[in-house]
Amino acid sequence: MRICIVGCGAVGSLFAANLSLLDDVEVWAYDVSQAHVDAINERGLRLTGAGEVVGRPRATTDAAELPPCDFGIVVTKAMHTEAAIAATAHAFADGCVATVQNGIGNEETIARYVERVIRGTTFPAGKILEPGVVQWDVKGDTTLGPFEPRPAPLAEIERLADACTRAGMPTHAVPDARGPQWRKVIFNASTNPIGALTGLTHGRVCERPDLRALVSGLVAEGKAVAAAQGIVLDADPEELIDHAAKPEVAYDHRSSMLQDVEARRQTEIDYLNGGIVRFGREHGVPTPLNEAIWALVKGVEQSWQQ
Amino acid sequence: MRICIVGCGAVGSLFAANLSLLDDVEVWAYDVSQAHVDAINERGLRLTGAGEVVGRPRATTDAAELPPCDFGIVVTKAMHTEAAIAATAHAFADGCVATVQNGIGNEETIARYVERVIRGTTFPAGKILEPGVVQWDVKGDTTLGPFEPRPAPLAEIERLADACTRAGMPTHAVPDARGPQWRKVIFNASTNPIGALTGLTHGRVCERPDLRALVSGLVAEGKAVAAAQGIVLDADPEELIDHAAKPEVAYDHRSSMLQDVEARRQTEIDYLNGGIVRFGREHGVPTPLNEAIWALVKGVEQSWQQ
Repeated sequence: MRICIVGCGAVGSLFAANLSLLDDVEVWAYDVSQAHVDAINERGLRLTGAGEVVGRPRATTDAAELPPCDFGIVVTKAMHTEAAIAATAHAFADGCVATVQNGIGNEETIARYVERVIRGTTFPAGKILEPGVVQWDVKGDTTLGPFEPRPAPLAEIERLADACTRAGMPTHAVPDARGPQWRKVIFNASTNPIGALTGLTHGRVCERPDLRALVSGLVAEGKAVAAAQGIVLDADPEELIDHAAKPEVAYDHRSSMLQDVEARRQTEIDYLNGGIVRFGREHGVPTPLNEAIWALVKGVEQSWQQ
Repeated sequence: MRICIVGCGAVGSLFAANLSLLDDVEVWAYDVSQAHVDAINERGLRLTGAGEVVGRPRATTDAAELPPCDFGIVVTKAMHTEAAIAATAHAFADGCVATVQNGIGNEETIARYVERVIRGTTFPAGKILEPGVVQWDVKGDTTLGPFEPRPAPLAEIERLADACTRAGMPTHAVPDARGPQWRKVIFNASTNPIGALTGLTHGRVCERPDLRALVSGLVAEGKAVAAAQGIVLDADPEELIDHAAKPEVAYDHRSSMLQDVEARRQTEIDYLNGGIVRFGREHGVPTPLNEAIWALVKGVEQSWQQ
């Protein structure tokens, strides 16, 4: 089986390094960073932290080098989905492509380029320490299921999930992956931008009754949009939020969007709150708070061009 | 006639310097800045910009020095109202006290300390350049009227307005000053914090359809809270917002709250959006967007203690 990781950033590297340890899987890693690609090809792809792994995927910045693959796993930031799948789609002409990215709308983009699409969501997290070296911060589950308008066959989804699980990345193949995906999107959309706009850690956001109420307002809108689509969340995002606020979990966590804002990097807001607003409009569900937060973070991004 | 300016900051200095030029008015200026007070007593209070004035108010940091006054005009930042009126109330035992401060709720605070209160709002603006020297940025009208629960007599309000007008600060005495006050509060609450949270100038906020829609959402809530109190706005805040966005008016204006945030100074958010939320609750009008903005700016303030 041949798998291509499309976007070998922090989370992509977790998949690429672990999957490359399996004897029956050949792993390719496509990424736009020449330094990261060169380091992987010269010294292997090293994970450290939650697991110590040195993987040996074949890495390239040149999509034309990619051979036909059984599976793609797209792990770019959401705003790079289109460019990444446009460049690599030829390798998946007979394969299936999964996304485990943040946000919503990635499946729709991928489906414009490939026939069989897998909807997914993943919880492991990490960060790139230097080219070829990735800190594995958090282990966690991945869920994969068919993307309804252009579904991959369930047997193929199970084959990919089995490989990931055997590689140390526990993965469930399910008939409907929208519940876990929307739970994560609602969690992220309701907490990340609040950290980004205020500069507060997750725990300090949750300690303030006024901000915690705003978080709940955002969650309620997200739940309503999910419910209007017939999506049953696999757990209440509110529980996840309170759990993460505990000192021993993620009280001191500065959201990835806060880190983006501090580094003046474009955020994923269009695919988090923006995605909830778009799906809300399609299904006639008002989302005024998500609209407000979306607009404010877009305004912050624009201020960097001043 | 003796008038005490309570809080001789930028706007207070405009009143103090101009009023001190009148032969029939004795002006005292109470302020907590010893440097500003000393400069005023040594070299006078100089205004430059929209008008060139050197006034000669008597300035003090010691409220006990204040003689009995016919009028007080409170011009502190809203979060300092309580301390300022508590210290100076003795001077107004037989007088009337006006507020021309930003935000809502100042009259209620003042009325806990003095018998006759004047509700007011003012549009002139400026900034302190150095102790004793104030840049007069914008001329504008002031409106004064009785504070309904503890009203000053209309004849006294007219006497104060007449003095201000003769001093070059055009001032109207009206039976109901709530319309101009709420128009200004709604304008400020709907625009200042958006600039503060995004870092954008007023014009650039208004150019983005998503942020301009958020501004309108905030305005609509403010109008509903005003209407529930039977307040008739003297003009539509939307018109003021569009007018200010013009290049020749205030396109490049960085809101005072943005300046506060950049300097890590406590903002007036509690008296702007916070005031709209409080009055909304009292009158059963939901204000979810003002609540969200209030919470976000409070979160920003808290992040400075991290």
